[in-house]
Amino acid sequence: MTTATPDQTRSGSPFETKALATPSAGAPFEAVRLTRRALRDDDVRIAIAWAGICHSDIHTVRDEWGPATYPMTPGHEIVGTVEAVGDAVTRYQVGDRVGVGCLVDACHECEQCKNGQEQFCEKPAVGTYNAPGYDGEITQGGYAQHIVVSEQMVLRIPDSMEMDGAAPLLCAGITTYSPLKRWGAGPGRKVAVVGVGGLGHVAVKIAAAMGAEVTTISRTDAKADEARELGAAAHIASGDEDAMKAARSSFDLIVNTVSADLDMSAYIALLRPFGALVNVGLPPSDLVVAPASLIIGDKVIAGSNIGGIPLTQEMLDFCAEHGITATIERIDASDTSAVDEAYDRIVAGDVRFRAVIDTSTISPA
Amino acid sequence: MTTATPDQTRSGSPFETKALATPSAGAPFEAVRLTRRALRDDDVRIAIAWAGICHSDIHTVRDEWGPATYPMTPGHEIVGTVEAVGDAVTRYQVGDRVGVGCLVDACHECEQCKNGQEQFCEKPAVGTYNAPGYDGEITQGGYAQHIVVSEQMVLRIPDSMEMDGAAPLLCAGITTYSPLKRWGAGPGRKVAVVGVGGLGHVAVKIAAAMGAEVTTISRTDAKADEARELGAAAHIASGDEDAMKAARSSFDLIVNTVSADLDMSAYIALLRPFGALVNVGLPPSDLVVAPASLIIGDKVIAGSNIGGIPLTQEMLDFCAEHGITATIERIDASDTSAVDEAYDRIVAGDVRFRAVIDTSTISPA
Repeated sequence: MTTATPDQTRSGSPFETKALATPSAGAPFEAVRLTRRALRDDDVRIAIAWAGICHSDIHTVRDEWGPATYPMTPGHEIVGTVEAVGDAVTRYQVGDRVGVGCLVDACHECEQCKNGQEQFCEKPAVGTYNAPGYDGEITQGGYAQHIVVSEQMVLRIPDSMEMDGAAPLLCAGITTYSPLKRWGAGPGRKVAVVGVGGLGHVAVKIAAAMGAEVTTISRTDAKADEARELGAAAHIASGDEDAMKAARSSFDLIVNTVSADLDMSAYIALLRPFGALVNVGLPPSDLVVAPASLIIGDKVIAGSNIGGIPLTQEMLDFCAEHGITATIERIDASDTSAVDEAYDRIVAGDVRFRAVIDTSTISPA
Repeated sequence: MTTATPDQTRSGSPFETKALATPSAGAPFEAVRLTRRALRDDDVRIAIAWAGICHSDIHTVRDEWGPATYPMTPGHEIVGTVEAVGDAVTRYQVGDRVGVGCLVDACHECEQCKNGQEQFCEKPAVGTYNAPGYDGEITQGGYAQHIVVSEQMVLRIPDSMEMDGAAPLLCAGITTYSPLKRWGAGPGRKVAVVGVGGLGHVAVKIAAAMGAEVTTISRTDAKADEARELGAAAHIASGDEDAMKAARSSFDLIVNTVSADLDMSAYIALLRPFGALVNVGLPPSDLVVAPASLIIGDKVIAGSNIGGIPLTQEMLDFCAEHGITATIERIDASDTSAVDEAYDRIVAGDVRFRAVIDTSTISPA
C-alpha cells in the first residue's frame, strides 16, 4: 500500500497526516505520522483546523473505559475544511466548513439509523477513535491534520460560527442539547446544570438560549460568577446544605454533567413533580435510588448519549442562530507536553471551559 | 355531637355507618359502627356499594408503611350512589353513580391542584384513609356503607360500567392508565407489564385498548393463558433466562407493577432506545442502576403515583368506551374473616385479579 501526502494527490491513495498519538496507556503524547485511508466514493477528506479535548478522551487514552488499542490518536470534536471529495459525494464541496463528532460510520439501514439516531445503530455505529471500523481497522481520531470520513457522518459548520469554539459543540454541544430538547427546556421551565465544566458550560448557554431559567450546581461557589456570565440566573453550592434544602422541588429538569458519583437522592429531591434528572456523565458506581423518591412526584431518572446526525446539525444551527460557541483555551501542540498538561488541568477542573488543539501546530520530527 | 343514621337525616348531622375496621396492626377485621362527618356545603354523601381491596390496604393495615392509626377502616377503591348533597354542590345529584379513589381532599389552590394533579397538592392532599384531614380528624376509608367527600374529589362512574368491576379502577385503573398515557402506549408501541395481579391485569387491558402490543412478564408461565385472555399478545417468564435474553431491546415501555425487589438491570436491558421503565409498585429496597445502562440508549427509569381527578375521570371514561372493568372476585363480608382470608390470598397472589367487598353485607352486632 502506497501512501502520499495530501498535496500530492486528490485521488484514492492512502496518505500520511501529522497527528498526536499515545503509544500506551497513560504515556505522554508524541507527534507522529498517521496513515489515513484512500478516499472512498462517499468520503470527504477534511483538513482539520481544531480538535477539542473531551474528558472521555482522557478516560480512553488512560485505558479507564475498557479495551484500548495503541498507539491511539483520540479526538471527536473536530472541525476543518473539506479538501477533497469522493466521486459519489453530493452534500459537500471542497472548501466547505465541516465538523465530525463522536461517530464516523453507521449502517444507515437499521431502524435507529432511519430515525436519525445513528448513535444507537444496531450494527453498531463506529466511534471516531479506538473503535473497530467496518473495514476492521481501528479508527483514529481528530488530534491530527486530516481525517477521511463518509459524508453521511459529516456536519456543516454554519458560516457565522468561529471554528475553534465550534469544535467542542460536536460532542459537548450535542451531549447537552439532546437532553435539554427531549426533556423540554424552554420558557417557563427551571433547569439545573450540575457541573460547570466542558459539558456544563455549554449546557448553560444552550438552556438559556432555549429560554429556560438556568441554575448551576457545583461543589462550591468558586464558579458562581463565571456561571452567571455563561447565562445562569443562579448558582448553588452542593456542599451548602441549606442552599440545597431551599432548592427542593424547584427544577423541571436537571442535567447532570458530572462523572463523579453523586447522591442521586439529593438531586431527585430538587425536582418538581414530573421532573427529570438526566445523567450525561458516566460515574464509576451504580446509581442508588429510593423507589418512593421517584413515585412520589412521578419523577424521572434518565441517561442521554450524544445524538444522531440530524440532531447534531440542528444543534449547530441552533447555536449559530443564538451566537453560541464553547468558551475555549487554545492549545499549541508544537510541544506535545502542552497536551499532556491540558489533560492534567482538565482532570483538575482548571480549564475554562474546553481545551482545543490547534492542529496546525502538530509537528513530528 | 349527635349522630344519626342516614335515613334519619338529610341535614348536617354526623351519622353512623356500618364499616369494617382493624383495631390494631395485623388484627382481624371487625364489623363496627363508624361516625361520618356532617355534610358540609360542598360535600356529597355516598352510599357505598362496593370497595376494592388494594394491596396497599394490606401494607397499611399491617403497619408496614409507616405511621398507622387504629382502629382503621381502609379502602380507596370506592363506588356507590349519591344519597345527599350539600347546599353548594353543583356537579352531582342524589342518585348519581360515583366513585372515590385515593384522595378525599386537596387545597385546590396550589400549582399542582390547578394543573389537575391533586395527588401532588402542596398542602398536601388528604389520603382516603389513615391520613390527617384538614380538620385534624384521621380519615377512614371505603370498607363501609357510607362516606362523605367533597364533590371536587368525586368521580362519575359512566352509566355503561358495572359498579363492582369499576371499583378497582379508582386506584388500579388510574395507577396504570397514568404511566401508559404519559409514556406513549399506543399503536405501534410494544409495552411490557411486569406482574399480572390487581394492578397488572388492569394495565394489560388498558394498554391493549390503547392499541399497544402487550407482553406480560411474571416469574413463571402460570398466568400465561390468563394474560392472553386479558389482552396480552405474549408472556415471558422472568425466570427463563433464554426468554429474557430473547426479549432484549424490544420494549418501548415497561410498567412494573410488582412491589418486590427486582433486578432493574434485567428490565432496563429489555428496553429499546429511548424506552422507559416505570415503577408503580413500591419495593422495599433501593433501586440499583448501572449508569451506562441508562446512557446507552437514552433510557428512562421513572415512578408514577396514581393521578389527579381530571385524569382519573378521563381513565373511567376511556375504560367505559372500551368496555374495561377490573376482573374481580366478590367478597361477602357478613363473616368478617372472609376479608382477612382475601388479604392472605392477595398476598399469596391467589386472587383473579381483584377482590371487591360487597359493603351491603357488613353487619355489626
